[in-house]
Amino acid sequence: MTEELAAEKRNHKMYGRASVMFDDPPYILSAASVVGKKESEGPLGTCFDCIESDSMLGRKTWEQAESELQTRAARLAVRKSGLSGGDIRYYFGGDLLAQLIATSFGSMELELPVFGVYGACSTMGEAMGLGAMTVEGGFADNVVVTASSHFASAEKQFRFPLEYGNQRPYSATWTVTGCGSVVIGKRREPEREYGGRRDEEEILRAAAGADEKRAGEKTRMSVPFAKIAGITTGKIVDMAVRDSMNMGAAMAMAALDTVLRNFHDLGVRETYYDRIVTGDLGQIGKRLLTDYMAEAGYDIAERHLDCGILIYDAEKQDTHAGGSGCGCSAAVLCGYILPKIKSGEWRRVLFVPTGALLSTVSFNEGQSVPGIAHAVILEHAEEKNG
Amino acid sequence: MTEELAAEKRNHKMYGRASVMFDDPPYILSAASVVGKKESEGPLGTCFDCIESDSMLGRKTWEQAESELQTRAARLAVRKSGLSGGDIRYYFGGDLLAQLIATSFGSMELELPVFGVYGACSTMGEAMGLGAMTVEGGFADNVVVTASSHFASAEKQFRFPLEYGNQRPYSATWTVTGCGSVVIGKRREPEREYGGRRDEEEILRAAAGADEKRAGEKTRMSVPFAKIAGITTGKIVDMAVRDSMNMGAAMAMAALDTVLRNFHDLGVRETYYDRIVTGDLGQIGKRLLTDYMAEAGYDIAERHLDCGILIYDAEKQDTHAGGSGCGCSAAVLCGYILPKIKSGEWRRVLFVPTGALLSTVSFNEGQSVPGIAHAVILEHAEEKNG
Repeated sequence: MTEELAAEKRNHKMYGRASVMFDDPPYILSAASVVGKKESEGPLGTCFDCIESDSMLGRKTWEQAESELQTRAARLAVRKSGLSGGDIRYYFGGDLLAQLIATSFGSMELELPVFGVYGACSTMGEAMGLGAMTVEGGFADNVVVTASSHFASAEKQFRFPLEYGNQRPYSATWTVTGCGSVVIGKRREPEREYGGRRDEEEILRAAAGADEKRAGEKTRMSVPFAKIAGITTGKIVDMAVRDSMNMGAAMAMAALDTVLRNFHDLGVRETYYDRIVTGDLGQIGKRLLTDYMAEAGYDIAERHLDCGILIYDAEKQDTHAGGSGCGCSAAVLCGYILPKIKSGEWRRVLFVPTGALLSTVSFNEGQSVPGIAHAVILEHAEEKNG
Repeated sequence: MTEELAAEKRNHKMYGRASVMFDDPPYILSAASVVGKKESEGPLGTCFDCIESDSMLGRKTWEQAESELQTRAARLAVRKSGLSGGDIRYYFGGDLLAQLIATSFGSMELELPVFGVYGACSTMGEAMGLGAMTVEGGFADNVVVTASSHFASAEKQFRFPLEYGNQRPYSATWTVTGCGSVVIGKRREPEREYGGRRDEEEILRAAAGADEKRAGEKTRMSVPFAKIAGITTGKIVDMAVRDSMNMGAAMAMAALDTVLRNFHDLGVRETYYDRIVTGDLGQIGKRLLTDYMAEAGYDIAERHLDCGILIYDAEKQDTHAGGSGCGCSAAVLCGYILPKIKSGEWRRVLFVPTGALLSTVSFNEGQSVPGIAHAVILEHAEEKNG
């Protein structure tokens, strides 16, 4: 590559202070979602690929169960892409647990080089951004990107033992037991497009492996397909929130910062997107975000959705402010958002997973709870004409 | 960019299953190291930029002290590069603490978009790989990459309260209090090279900020400079090691896997490198690595170094198997390795930070301790002639 070309290319990609728009956008070739029983009983219950009615997933500990969610989702995403494991170059993954153990133990079976990432509940956005840059930069043809959470491993990590039966304030969220995984890659030639050469049912049976029968009953094939047009990487926003039971407020300001930066970097406004979908702001965070956006001159009320609100029926399921966790936005992306983009119902979506940056140590030592939000610009992929 | 060019470019970059060789290698424009008192008393004591004799760094908790290490190292790296904060596009950082709190709170002051990464003690290698791809792919002109650890925050996180006075077996390592930070960017035109337009002392004074006087005494300017020729991303290697006090063994097999993969992907052998420098294998892990490499037909004994062995005098400093922690390889890279590459004493180095993937939860639940190692190929940068 000549130096001029490199320079030209560089200038094309960098937008503003934090955004990248891809010259040669990578594609989401496939997506898979695996969730628990409670998630299957929510409004999106029929959207997910696999429902695990056993919250231990046949393993001995909650942490191993979460690893199992990652293994199953990633394996299914790869199979649904029509690629073999050997076609995938890197695994980008993350979770909420200390030292990312769900990812370490969950990614192992795939035997891929691994990039562990941590952005709290914004992890799916961060990992997709890195994965997309890796593909578009020519460093990989295909990568798999995965993020997970598990209600019980998260409660153990961050809150109280389940046996304690702790009371939860209405501002608290409910950690989603779930995992979403996407394969990001260069677009295939038509004859090689995923699913094109293999019967969907066959892929599914293979993906389900030993658990074939149950998967046959519970699993449906969703065929999402979208283009990653660009990303806006979030910075850490500290509004001095000190209430770990009200993380929506901590994250709303980070979402505000990232969305406004995206508008500014790209020179667009809210009407550029059919939907702006945040990760897990919950009811309180949602109100804060829409109010502050309105104050900044953008009316997003009609086009804003929040994965944490979508995934549960708060009244019937007693989930208070909504769902949360890395797996919340990841599973809703794979099960609900991407299919709508593929069908063309939504042409352009700003996907903005949000994270609250705390640990029990930082919290107990009186530190604030800063937030972060990583945005991914997803577009409907037109039929390829040549 | 035409499709042919993109394809050609892609083929140029991807080597084997896990390695990338850059067409247009990014440079390490500057590096900064900040360490504690014990590290300053070791064999490399005179190599580091800043010695913090107060292990709390003026903060109230060990975790805040570690964040402060990151802030100081990153700020110093940016200042030493001769760039301003506005020239840096992204912050890649990681640490050992649950939910990366040292990084979240340590990176905040720089007000940059942040990618949090976790690879246990291999974090510096992982983050440099991602940072280098981001620059070479045209997504950023300059990024800052930082990894830290702190003896006291790590003991609290992984082992016993310091007050307990726990006995340590000889296979145990000592977590380094330290941080290394590099600025990775496109090479400047000669007149814009770092330090070229500013007096070094002036940069240093500015970097030291309020702590000016002490920094003036304790800090020296090191001017490392190297080219990142490529990377080899590690996969997770599980040898069913179950002894958290002997992590060198867990990591040695991961280092072996990554080094052999690097040789295989590039079609080279040990003589290609002047030095192969692992992160924190310690004495036991080093012996395992060299023995297994010899069995595979490669005699690396003469050219192998380990940051964990280099940083302390094990006999005099009672550090047993050696130093460890994300900050170990990061600080030794910045204080010791990069200056030798800049001077041309070493022309090509394979830098292989190593990580043991465990948490107290995974360990107490009887899970094994898998390892991971991420390699970065560093080369002496020739004088620019055009």
